[in-house]
Amino acid sequence: MAQLRLALAQVNATVGDLPGNAALVREWTARAAAEGAHLVAFPEMALTGYPVEDLALRTSFVDASRAALTHLAAQLAADGHGDLPVVVGYLDRAAPGTLDTDPQRELPQNCAAVLHRGEVVARYAKHHLPTYGVFDEARVFAPGHDLAVVRVRGVDVALAICEDIWQEGGPVSMAREAGAELLLVLNGSPYERDKDDVRLELAARRARQAECVLAYLNLVGGQDELVFDGDSIVVSPDGSVLARGPQFEQDLLVVDLDVAPSTFDPSDVTEGVTFTSVSEETAEPYAARPAPCAERLDPVGEVYQALVLGLRDYVRKNGMRSVVLGLSGGIDSALVAAVACDALGAENVHGVSMPSAYSSEHSKDDAADLADRTGLHYRVQAIKPMVEAFLGELGLTGVAEENLQARCRGVILMGLSNEEGHLTLATGNKSELAVGYSTIYGDSVGGFAPLKDVPKSLVWQLSTWRNEEAERRGETMPIPPNSITKPPSAELRPGQVDQDSLPPYDVLDAILERYVSGAQGRAQLVEAGFEADVVDKVVSLVDRAEWKRRQFAPGPKISALAFGRDRRLPITSRWREQDS
Amino acid sequence: MAQLRLALAQVNATVGDLPGNAALVREWTARAAAEGAHLVAFPEMALTGYPVEDLALRTSFVDASRAALTHLAAQLAADGHGDLPVVVGYLDRAAPGTLDTDPQRELPQNCAAVLHRGEVVARYAKHHLPTYGVFDEARVFAPGHDLAVVRVRGVDVALAICEDIWQEGGPVSMAREAGAELLLVLNGSPYERDKDDVRLELAARRARQAECVLAYLNLVGGQDELVFDGDSIVVSPDGSVLARGPQFEQDLLVVDLDVAPSTFDPSDVTEGVTFTSVSEETAEPYAARPAPCAERLDPVGEVYQALVLGLRDYVRKNGMRSVVLGLSGGIDSALVAAVACDALGAENVHGVSMPSAYSSEHSKDDAADLADRTGLHYRVQAIKPMVEAFLGELGLTGVAEENLQARCRGVILMGLSNEEGHLTLATGNKSELAVGYSTIYGDSVGGFAPLKDVPKSLVWQLSTWRNEEAERRGETMPIPPNSITKPPSAELRPGQVDQDSLPPYDVLDAILERYVSGAQGRAQLVEAGFEADVVDKVVSLVDRAEWKRRQFAPGPKISALAFGRDRRLPITSRWREQDS
Repeated sequence: MAQLRLALAQVNATVGDLPGNAALVREWTARAAAEGAHLVAFPEMALTGYPVEDLALRTSFVDASRAALTHLAAQLAADGHGDLPVVVGYLDRAAPGTLDTDPQRELPQNCAAVLHRGEVVARYAKHHLPTYGVFDEARVFAPGHDLAVVRVRGVDVALAICEDIWQEGGPVSMAREAGAELLLVLNGSPYERDKDDVRLELAARRARQAECVLAYLNLVGGQDELVFDGDSIVVSPDGSVLARGPQFEQDLLVVDLDVAPSTFDPSDVTEGVTFTSVSEETAEPYAARPAPCAERLDPVGEVYQALVLGLRDYVRKNGMRSVVLGLSGGIDSALVAAVACDALGAENVHGVSMPSAYSSEHSKDDAADLADRTGLHYRVQAIKPMVEAFLGELGLTGVAEENLQARCRGVILMGLSNEEGHLTLATGNKSELAVGYSTIYGDSVGGFAPLKDVPKSLVWQLSTWRNEEAERRGETMPIPPNSITKPPSAELRPGQVDQDSLPPYDVLDAILERYVSGAQGRAQLVEAGFEADVVDKVVSLVDRAEWKRRQFAPGPKISALAFGRDRRLPITSRWREQDS
Repeated sequence: MAQLRLALAQVNATVGDLPGNAALVREWTARAAAEGAHLVAFPEMALTGYPVEDLALRTSFVDASRAALTHLAAQLAADGHGDLPVVVGYLDRAAPGTLDTDPQRELPQNCAAVLHRGEVVARYAKHHLPTYGVFDEARVFAPGHDLAVVRVRGVDVALAICEDIWQEGGPVSMAREAGAELLLVLNGSPYERDKDDVRLELAARRARQAECVLAYLNLVGGQDELVFDGDSIVVSPDGSVLARGPQFEQDLLVVDLDVAPSTFDPSDVTEGVTFTSVSEETAEPYAARPAPCAERLDPVGEVYQALVLGLRDYVRKNGMRSVVLGLSGGIDSALVAAVACDALGAENVHGVSMPSAYSSEHSKDDAADLADRTGLHYRVQAIKPMVEAFLGELGLTGVAEENLQARCRGVILMGLSNEEGHLTLATGNKSELAVGYSTIYGDSVGGFAPLKDVPKSLVWQLSTWRNEEAERRGETMPIPPNSITKPPSAELRPGQVDQDSLPPYDVLDAILERYVSGAQGRAQLVEAGFEADVVDKVVSLVDRAEWKRRQFAPGPKISALAFGRDRRLPITSRWREQDS
């Protein structure tokens, strides 16, 4: 048998930050070397950050990625780690003559490189380009067609990238035919509720199909609306778990493999396989260490951690430090405040209570109680003088008056953001946004909305979970119990509560889940047992609100490439064209 | 020779409005019948509207499109037009067993159907699915692989849809092999400055390759950010123009073709071709009429018409009637007001002058002059009382104070929009948006931004063109000449002008064109002769402003399908799930 100490570096890369990401690779390679690893791997596009979206179409960025890779190989050797092979994801041009696409669209490729002794010794381009959900890879990448196999300490390692193992055939069957002992899969796979088991089940199935060990290495960190959760997994050829990394944290997952040594004859290389020998000799026999197998977080706790990491990285990677938000005394703003304090420290969180004529006493008390419990910066700013100035001049009524209150609060928060340099957080939840119960340029203002994808029923669960977690740790519960138990209200007119005009939130959320996430139609919803008139009401609210959610003003397009949906760039990006 | 009177119905369909679009097909089929047409065609996805984006993923919508098509065939026959074959674009399921994609993703197809005698007699699915620029068709459609040929009056007509002729091979070469006499191409091709000649050049090249007449039929109308410009073209097998439809207007382009009668033996059908005979007998010889060949608009005039149609359809198709906008006395708001008056009539345009302490006298005079010239509804609303209410409470300074003025104006416009039911127009231009010279939730508020893709130098050209056009027609020039000639200023502090902090607009716009639309890098820009420090300044402003342009607050995603980039629905859509 041949032994191999594999180190999976589950790191947090930043889109566009080529020097920073290269430094990360050097730092974690040094740790892997200290652990005695024979091979260290980094996630999908770790050198450029992921996803780069239409930055991939900018030649200067592709060239910068290529140059950074070559430079990184040299730096690793200079660091004294030239003998440790490093697998890292990056962005590359397609090799000339390998593209079958329109020559007008010479797209780059989503690649993995193997660095060894100061050189780039092997290269693999992703075969399957996902073009659904959050993925638009067929827009910006050209597919690869070859399999890359590298021999390390006598063990043949085949490479694959993310979607490659979600599709039947392709690199998985090629790896089996090439007789690889390890299929190393670099991923940029975003967190999804209840997705964990799908990944493990897939990894196990593919390991059995490839008849070898499968190492599934995933990115960690927030990037715009995506949160990558790590949770890397190593499975044996029979599909059992050998090791598992933590969720939502950087980690070096080190696992000792014991596999049959390679019997593959490189002179026998079949078409479509590129073979590179890094080191033929198997490792001297050594005592294997037990591999770590991190505990899964519970279903509510993992959502909470996703929200914390998503917010922390959005603030940090955009070069900011602190946030400001309105505290209404209600549960949404209380939960956002708790998440923000956990993500950034209470000293970087600024809460503003902005009572109106319709705000109840308990609302003001609950907001102050939240501030006491968490220790965030707290101030009270009544909106009456501003609202009266507008009403005196414009004489607004009804919905226009309700919206005016929300908009005056928005102007206050944005003014404080501009004056003091905080990022404004919007506190609305997904249920509210879905049915349009928010004011454009009012409570929806902000640079980030932590609860944008959190339905109201989950808001209660998360708040309860966070308070219970505090109890378990013997700490103060951050969220006022009264904010959890009282009936929700926008308090935009006297005595208003949400359930005046909406079905109960458990019913609403169940319909939204099926209609929005499940793309089910009216007939299916009614068949599932929801009352037809409730379905019609919700569906009609959701369809109307679609417009409101796209708050940026669209405008007619007259040029080949305009701002908008035909030019998709990351919001969070450290790429500086000036440096190219 | 065989004669064929072909009618191309260049119509304005609305996304999601199946009954309305079916009514449009019936109306224009009746016109074609009155013209004695032998065949009438409608654009790509005319029955559903185009593009439907992720509505295609909703089974209820696909089913509704299929049902609407069957119903339409019966209605046409009931109208007495059953003998006139009608070609119409719609959305369909893929025929079972024809998909090579992952069974988990059973995508529908972008199709054309031939309706005859109350039945759907032939069907074609688009082969090439564009996935670049504004197009994301690989996300939502499965590709077709077969060619459809229909024989009408002894003439063999091959069908193709849009991107099918932009790619080499595919339906174009299949049509030649099948010996078709006419290649009928249904398009949904959005307007682009200077794109006209590209389309004609392409149509001529493909006609020569297919060795037959090519009819290029395009949609008309605004849909969210896209403006379809019509401009349908018929070219002979040698590539010369036989007929051309008008730009930006609905039209029935009737052209008499005189082609060799079909020599194709249907029993000889090759694999991948479906053949349908609608009518074998050639038409009785008749005197051909001269085909119309519409004049092209001049390069600035066609942009102006695109803006007018884009705004008119955004307002109308969203079920609104009137607009409100701020009038600063500057050229941007003056041009938007002129476009709005042309699109909706001055009686539906509400202008608000909102002077601040820093507004010059000429600004107020120019705004009033604009109102006089156009006849729009005009009011003056000083912002001082509101600005002072906020400043008194919050004590903002510098940029925070500048933004406050813009935000108070935003609150006023949105208040009037809510109270009176107008759509708010944002008046910022592309150059300003590109470099971030606008205030989030301030001058950028609005449901539509007519100048979002219009650089400042083109704003001047359009304004001059519109005034000259008025002179040509002997009408009052809508735009105050002083708004055109004075130096641009945001007037957010005393004596401020744009050129204090920006390069001259002709230089700025030239850099933006290359950096934003051309995706050129710094090195290319400097090589093209722009000063390095100017390039660095512009590039750095653009990269920073990318964030601001996405004004909706992003938020961490935790579910399979969240609101945001993984769920792309048309803003403007008449689809009502309740009716399904």
